[in-house]
Amino acid sequence: MSQIALSDLNAASFDDFVAVLENVVEYSPWIAQEAAARRPFAGINPLLDAIKAAIASAEPEVQLALIRAHPDLANKTQRAAGLTPDSSAEQNSAGLDRLSDTEYAAFERANNAYREKFGIPYIVCARRHTKDSILQDFEARLQNIAKTETRRALEEISRIAALRLDQLVIADDKLKVHGRLSTHVLDNHAGKPAPGIAVELIELASLGESRVIARTLTNVDGRTDQPLIGGRPLPIGRYELRFSVAKYYAERNVQLSDPPFLDDIPLRFAISEPESHYHVPLLVTPWSYSTYRGS
Amino acid sequence: MSQIALSDLNAASFDDFVAVLENVVEYSPWIAQEAAARRPFAGINPLLDAIKAAIASAEPEVQLALIRAHPDLANKTQRAAGLTPDSSAEQNSAGLDRLSDTEYAAFERANNAYREKFGIPYIVCARRHTKDSILQDFEARLQNIAKTETRRALEEISRIAALRLDQLVIADDKLKVHGRLSTHVLDNHAGKPAPGIAVELIELASLGESRVIARTLTNVDGRTDQPLIGGRPLPIGRYELRFSVAKYYAERNVQLSDPPFLDDIPLRFAISEPESHYHVPLLVTPWSYSTYRGS
Amino acid sequence: MSQIALSDLNAASFDDFVAVLENVVEYSPWIAQEAAARRPFAGINPLLDAIKAAIASAEPEVQLALIRAHPDLANKTQRAAGLTPDSSAEQNSAGLDRLSDTEYAAFERANNAYREKFGIPYIVCARRHTKDSILQDFEARLQNIAKTETRRALEEISRIAALRLDQLVIADDKLKVHGRLSTHVLDNHAGKPAPGIAVELIELASLGESRVIARTLTNVDGRTDQPLIGGRPLPIGRYELRFSVAKYYAERNVQLSDPPFLDDIPLRFAISEPESHYHVPLLVTPWSYSTYRGS
Amino acid sequence: MSQIALSDLNAASFDDFVAVLENVVEYSPWIAQEAAARRPFAGINPLLDAIKAAIASAEPEVQLALIRAHPDLANKTQRAAGLTPDSSAEQNSAGLDRLSDTEYAAFERANNAYREKFGIPYIVCARRHTKDSILQDFEARLQNIAKTETRRALEEISRIAALRLDQLVIADDKLKVHGRLSTHVLDNHAGKPAPGIAVELIELASLGESRVIARTLTNVDGRTDQPLIGGRPLPIGRYELRFSVAKYYAERNVQLSDPPFLDDIPLRFAISEPESHYHVPLLVTPWSYSTYRGS
Repeated sequence: MSQIALSDLNAASFDDFVAVLENVVEYSPWIAQEAAARRPFAGINPLLDAIKAAIASAEPEVQLALIRAHPDLANKTQRAAGLTPDSSAEQNSAGLDRLSDTEYAAFERANNAYREKFGIPYIVCARRHTKDSILQDFEARLQNIAKTETRRALEEISRIAALRLDQLVIADDKLKVHGRLSTHVLDNHAGKPAPGIAVELIELASLGESRVIARTLTNVDGRTDQPLIGGRPLPIGRYELRFSVAKYYAERNVQLSDPPFLDDIPLRFAISEPESHYHVPLLVTPWSYSTYRGS
Repeated sequence: MSQIALSDLNAASFDDFVAVLENVVEYSPWIAQEAAARRPFAGINPLLDAIKAAIASAEPEVQLALIRAHPDLANKTQRAAGLTPDSSAEQNSAGLDRLSDTEYAAFERANNAYREKFGIPYIVCARRHTKDSILQDFEARLQNIAKTETRRALEEISRIAALRLDQLVIADDKLKVHGRLSTHVLDNHAGKPAPGIAVELIELASLGESRVIARTLTNVDGRTDQPLIGGRPLPIGRYELRFSVAKYYAERNVQLSDPPFLDDIPLRFAISEPESHYHVPLLVTPWSYSTYRGS
Repeated sequence: MSQIALSDLNAASFDDFVAVLENVVEYSPWIAQEAAARRPFAGINPLLDAIKAAIASAEPEVQLALIRAHPDLANKTQRAAGLTPDSSAEQNSAGLDRLSDTEYAAFERANNAYREKFGIPYIVCARRHTKDSILQDFEARLQNIAKTETRRALEEISRIAALRLDQLVIADDKLKVHGRLSTHVLDNHAGKPAPGIAVELIELASLGESRVIARTLTNVDGRTDQPLIGGRPLPIGRYELRFSVAKYYAERNVQLSDPPFLDDIPLRFAISEPESHYHVPLLVTPWSYSTYRGS
Repeated sequence: MSQIALSDLNAASFDDFVAVLENVVEYSPWIAQEAAARRPFAGINPLLDAIKAAIASAEPEVQLALIRAHPDLANKTQRAAGLTPDSSAEQNSAGLDRLSDTEYAAFERANNAYREKFGIPYIVCARRHTKDSILQDFEARLQNIAKTETRRALEEISRIAALRLDQLVIADDKLKVHGRLSTHVLDNHAGKPAPGIAVELIELASLGESRVIARTLTNVDGRTDQPLIGGRPLPIGRYELRFSVAKYYAERNVQLSDPPFLDDIPLRFAISEPESHYHVPLLVTPWSYSTYRGS
């Protein structure tokens, strides 16, 4: 995706400014228009604030129209008819383009129940979620009253806008929209970081299939060269990290039992704060291990 | 199964002694007959030694006949025709009576390859194994030379005999044929043992389905009232212990994230020594845990 | 000290009963006399209840006389004039017979301040305390009002009586007056309990010298044959356990740095509940260790 | 100390070059002279190599004179007569200017024994040592043969030169002469880094008094703003880190026992590799803690 500098946006014509930002909020160029009038922006955070302010100060009917301009999640008919490229990419990021039949049915039931109760589409910032957590969010929000859901829908629209803006605009300041998942393997048997350990990160799913979303090796410092997830929000959900520990010790001629007491070690944990840093290390010997939420 | 005291065996008539012990070694009453002549026995260990000595001192052809008197493992035709009750119970203990098609095919291939190479049935003390470890043992032993496998077969026959004897005879001394798997949950957040935690023990399978082999709750001391496996050899294999930790903390009003960082905690480990004590504890807080091979 | 069975006490003459129990409460045979009238006792707990009831139902002046019958703690003049053998042993158990000059001065100041404020001697069940914790208890109780201290003094007298009774009378039931301090060394480098590790237990002192109160070796199971403290209340106070870990690994030819990263490992902790079980284990490799309050 | 850029040294006159570097090796300007002739240097590492080469290629008598140009360690007479500023600062860095009488006597005995056996002064790079480790090094090296000690003396002279060079010359490359000691406190009770924890680092001494060499507070990430030791070699020796944990939890209203089970937690460890990174973290709850050599 092509990016633009904030200084260029500040200097652009009204029309060019709107053209660049019109898709930051789904089918609602009036928001970019209102923001254009408030230029120049000292940073991307003030620009986001202007977009939020435009949404917040709109008349209730306009807000409702804004909400209704959004597609259902995981709706096959709408997907066939064509989503905006942004919406499509966002839904795909949560795996909504490859649902099992069971999952698809669960989403359809939830969408229908939501529309029936509230008369609006269910809106969620999909990049902050896994399939699992969206279905749980559906359940939770179905218990709310309509007014709460109008507010929640606008909040999620702002979150979506923030992430689209973050991808589109280069500025000196940064929006706080990214999280980071990292790990570190310490070999307490040797008193050193453990290099060359195969690490897998699996996104766990309740209905469909769990899937491997990262595969890597630990480097010389026992860390991974890249974060396991980074440069984006961490999708809320349940995960498993898997470390090939027996192979590592066998290669170092450490005496193991047969089969080895510890082989592939799974660490299961959940992410609940998409914009945070989760550090999930492994301290290990052939006979023991520990983990904790680190920093 | 009815049991008999060693003192009664020592005092029994020759025929009665043989009648009681004739099935300790599959289809080979001559072994009980030889042992009968060595009475009285000061304990069950000397009795087992007498049985082993009878096997070891037999002529090679007799040993071969003894080996060939054993059934194949997991052979459907033989099972249909009827195994001895002991054989049947032993094979069932390792789950050989409920193989998936894939597993059944793997066992058939292995049996055939083994018979073809060595001309004898593959013999293993099934109570010391899981399906997985038997298939691995098959692979390993197929690499041996014939002489080694004759020796191994006699060893396994002695192990089978020891376990049958252990179930049959009551004595003051004990055979060292049992292992024990235990756990203990320490709540390092509260500084106390963790009672009421749901614990599952799962036997992991490579080919077929993993299965839950124990379900229990921790008691007031954070332990389980009964060992997870006890009163028998621990089957060699891979296992997962699963602890419902989030539920425990939620019931105690400890503040957790949503979803909780740690929920069901899996500990994966392998057992390689059937006659040992494996203690696999969990030290836990809502944000950290550790385990180790304890004692 | 000679002990007597509860059944014999129940059957004894009034005078004999009183003669045996008259020192259970300092200089107050009337309490034993009242208890004698309530015989027979089904257990040592009901006997203690009868003694407590006698104290609780006494007239205020009688209670005051009872309190005043007690000596000051660590008072050299009184010690020179002679304490009851029980008082003497109890004070010595907390090290009050070997105070440094600084400590002696601190006790004298505290005793005087207490007597001046409340008009009674400060009473504490010394077997439940270290020198340090008595001085802290002094400070805390000096803040109370007189009525509270009368109640507290009677409570401590009951605790002293319970411990004297526990040493004197043999019964089927037990008084809950003992605690236990234990340890366990697990070698996570070898996956086994660590035998032969030298362990020292040190009672830490703020004013005087810290002193070693137990020295032992771990046994084949990594535990100590006897509890580090047992068969008595655990004295409230601060402690250090010290484990000679480098020596243990060096003897097993585990490669260590020079000097070894970990050598004598100190674990510092405090005991606050004299009648509880404190389990303070060490999980260790040459490069890591952990401890926790176990069970 | 004033520093000079390597480029300036490369461009300097022969005399100026020598004037700047003449003290890099004690009383031996000929080494700087030889190095001057090999200019220009692409980095500080090649410059050090030139100095080492000059030492290594010198005639044996010249090497011996070089060794004899060095003062004894901790020699009061020599100190009174005046050391070079470099020597003085180096000896002081290891605390040799504030020895107890016992320590002073130990150094004197060791110096005399060494001189008597080898006829040269004992030379050690004092910045890589504590008093304790120097005395141990003395003991170990007294066992060597003379030839070994000549080689060892020259090695230590090179290490001293490297550190003096590192302080004197600014270059794009760095000499690997520094180590780093860091810590990190993770609160496993809260699942967060622990800020505001008072941390003390104590250098332990066998003969003299142990002394606090750093006092700091953990920052918002549970780390210290500056390394506990950094920008220099880590002195070989034994250390204790002390963390005020009870105060931290009390301030956060976490319920503790009285006295708290854990209060000031000591971690004892040794440093054996002066040029390495030692990371010694604390994972802690009010009821448990662990540490390990991290990275």
